[in-house]
Amino acid sequence: MKKIDHIGIAVKSIDKALNLYKNLLELEVTGEEVLEDRGLRVVFVQVGETRIELLEPLNENSEISGFLAKRGEGIHHIAYAVDNVQEMINKSKELGIKPLSDEPKDGAHNTKVAFLHPKTTNGVLTELVEHR
Amino acid sequence: MKKIDHIGIAVKSIDKALNLYKNLLELEVTGEEVLEDRGLRVVFVQVGETRIELLEPLNENSEISGFLAKRGEGIHHIAYAVDNVQEMINKSKELGIKPLSDEPKDGAHNTKVAFLHPKTTNGVLTELVEHR
Repeated sequence: MKKIDHIGIAVKSIDKALNLYKNLLELEVTGEEVLEDRGLRVVFVQVGETRIELLEPLNENSEISGFLAKRGEGIHHIAYAVDNVQEMINKSKELGIKPLSDEPKDGAHNTKVAFLHPKTTNGVLTELVEHR
Repeated sequence: MKKIDHIGIAVKSIDKALNLYKNLLELEVTGEEVLEDRGLRVVFVQVGETRIELLEPLNENSEISGFLAKRGEGIHHIAYAVDNVQEMINKSKELGIKPLSDEPKDGAHNTKVAFLHPKTTNGVLTELVEHR
């Protein structure tokens, strides 16, 4: 099914960010995870068929610390649900779009994922997600 | 209905950007507009219940020229469909979130819209859209 699977937003404080997503927009918080290996606290907010993933660094070496230092808070990536990530990786190369890996990686919740380099996708870090 | 109405992406060339959205992701292009007064060419791409709005400047004084000069290509704003924009403007002030106007403005396609200042929404320029 074609849809936006989720939008990742890098924030310094999820609790503060929830003022918009929970208090103002009244969206439902559907989950929370602490990913020690990636240095992240993640809170999921459902909006229609899509999720907002709020990403907060646990430490200065987190996956988003570089992004926060360079760009500040804001949208980190957009993820599209696709049927077959490997096929999309192959096709992206044919189209001159650069995948960050030649094969899908295991994502959370039994998914396969791949990222496309923002320099080849008009500045938007783009993720492809296959739900198994 | 709560959903992401659209995501605005500022690009230098819509034709190049369509390599990702049309050629790779195979999303449907559903419309195109030239907005002389805002200095914009806009192409709409449907993905599930949401639209991607690709925004390209027609000239150096366009609405997104400052953004492109400062940040480069990338996501410009996220718009949420809401039932009543005026109520959301009022509520946002109570919550310490700053609307860019005290009243809704007329948007495209018979909508009322308002924007929230990104400094009060964790770096994400956030639009509220009411469909009449």
